[in-house]
Amino acid sequence: MRAVVHAGAGGPDVLSIRDIGDPSPGPGQVRVRVRASALNRADILQRKGRYHAPPGWPADIPGLEYAGEIESVGAGASRWAAGDRVMGLVGGGAHAELLVVPEDEVLPVPAALDFPEAAAVPEAFLTAFDALTVRGHLQRGQRVLIHTVGSGVGTAAAQLAHAMGATVLGTSRTAEKLERARALGLDVGIDTSHGSFADRVGEPVHLVLDTLGAPAFADNVAVLAPLGRLVLLGFLGGSRGEIDLGPVLRKRLEIIGTVLRTRGPGERAALADAARTGLIPLLESGAVRPVIDRRLPMAAIAEAHRAMEGNGTFGKIVLEW
Amino acid sequence: MRAVVHAGAGGPDVLSIRDIGDPSPGPGQVRVRVRASALNRADILQRKGRYHAPPGWPADIPGLEYAGEIESVGAGASRWAAGDRVMGLVGGGAHAELLVVPEDEVLPVPAALDFPEAAAVPEAFLTAFDALTVRGHLQRGQRVLIHTVGSGVGTAAAQLAHAMGATVLGTSRTAEKLERARALGLDVGIDTSHGSFADRVGEPVHLVLDTLGAPAFADNVAVLAPLGRLVLLGFLGGSRGEIDLGPVLRKRLEIIGTVLRTRGPGERAALADAARTGLIPLLESGAVRPVIDRRLPMAAIAEAHRAMEGNGTFGKIVLEW
Repeated sequence: MRAVVHAGAGGPDVLSIRDIGDPSPGPGQVRVRVRASALNRADILQRKGRYHAPPGWPADIPGLEYAGEIESVGAGASRWAAGDRVMGLVGGGAHAELLVVPEDEVLPVPAALDFPEAAAVPEAFLTAFDALTVRGHLQRGQRVLIHTVGSGVGTAAAQLAHAMGATVLGTSRTAEKLERARALGLDVGIDTSHGSFADRVGEPVHLVLDTLGAPAFADNVAVLAPLGRLVLLGFLGGSRGEIDLGPVLRKRLEIIGTVLRTRGPGERAALADAARTGLIPLLESGAVRPVIDRRLPMAAIAEAHRAMEGNGTFGKIVLEW
Repeated sequence: MRAVVHAGAGGPDVLSIRDIGDPSPGPGQVRVRVRASALNRADILQRKGRYHAPPGWPADIPGLEYAGEIESVGAGASRWAAGDRVMGLVGGGAHAELLVVPEDEVLPVPAALDFPEAAAVPEAFLTAFDALTVRGHLQRGQRVLIHTVGSGVGTAAAQLAHAMGATVLGTSRTAEKLERARALGLDVGIDTSHGSFADRVGEPVHLVLDTLGAPAFADNVAVLAPLGRLVLLGFLGGSRGEIDLGPVLRKRLEIIGTVLRTRGPGERAALADAARTGLIPLLESGAVRPVIDRRLPMAAIAEAHRAMEGNGTFGKIVLEW
């Protein structure tokens, strides 16, 4: 099979497509013919040598999500049959033509979506779904602030929060991204290209989905209502800084770190189960939909990395075989 | 009635006992003849002018917990009758002979306890109970690290965690306090008078109850297992410092601030309800018991403050009328 492979750590040009051996499905696993994958910030970090694949996943093939067809099944795997349209998350290896995954971690592709659209779903929507519901406990009528709302996770979270009946606030450094996010359910857009967001939030929020990290911590905590939750999804501004925990105690806040990639098989299967009932129906009905910035052939992987690093994208960059 | 009153902010000598007007119970309230109260760190902070009583509670009378008898009941209050032995938490005003409280926030005094013992229960045990169970989700067989385990909250938490079937680790800067805590269920005592606790914890813990704050944050996070919880109860070492949020995300931790005093009536009543079923039976059976460092007459309030500030106490300082 062909796969994207890292030739060491560095710029986008360390990535190339090579012919390598096909993986074989073990017991309880399925082999997927990957039709499309999508790009994530973690792929950039991994390329730079700053983020390694967790144990049990290919170390040199990037890619955290896929859509395609079941190609064959391993011993004892009974959930899927050859030809089924599937999508899902992996700890690595999704930028390949063939991928082996535990059958319990696989999700069906909603009928309304083609493969490139489906490839834009798993990381963004499972991250947002998990952050809003499982970790964030968002309730109808509450207010949620979503940072970098034009990102893959941001556009998914805005739609899901809107579908859940929340008031959705979002930040971006680009006014045009905020404008586009309005069509997805964003109620209040905050342009952070000039000044802090804290004084433009208004009424306190019950939940913040943060991708900014330490530089935004004080303002995130300041805009939270008592018993509010701050879910940490990433650190675009760095993870380290001078931080005051005082308001966390006084307002009885919860600061919750979350990342999908390091989860073990049991947790991945549990999240897939939760998504079957809580997320897939919203995709089937069209209440939420993947937001795709552009589709590129897998051979343009270096161009895809450059586009993501340029921060000019809105939604996901999809890679097709 | 007589009450302890602050004459401005300052040292222990700003406290004195004065004659002031009796409070009257409003609808749904009861008036308690206070027999004993106990001292808390928040009383020290309040005396120094660094912590104010929340709205609705006496601003100039300290005291956050009481034990005594129901003296009279307000209109519509039906839960208690004159003479009932009761105890509970208040937002302030407990260092007085009479105290008015909503009847739903009052707890019965277990038969095994006299008033001074009962006065040592509410803050320590409700804080520990809430931190371990409601916020900390401690499960049988898990490991919990309790900082300043010789304090009122620490001695309560060690006993409760032991009764819940957890392995209990605790820190103190005083070897003798660790030795005394062993009799309360402490399994592993860590003397922090020399060096960090982090390399002496061994296997990761599932829960940390922290009273140290920012200086201990990195080590607290380091000793937590994935999905572990750090409950912030106080900041003896300060709340502000250089903090790295990276491990919070990677290990998917939860940092949870909690404080009892600022809670509104609904939350106070809910905690009292939870304590009726989850905590009072443990006190009734003797599975857990208040730990009293010393009993002093209320007139010795300044001496009580000095003793707490000296950090030589083990358990609660009780004040009797």
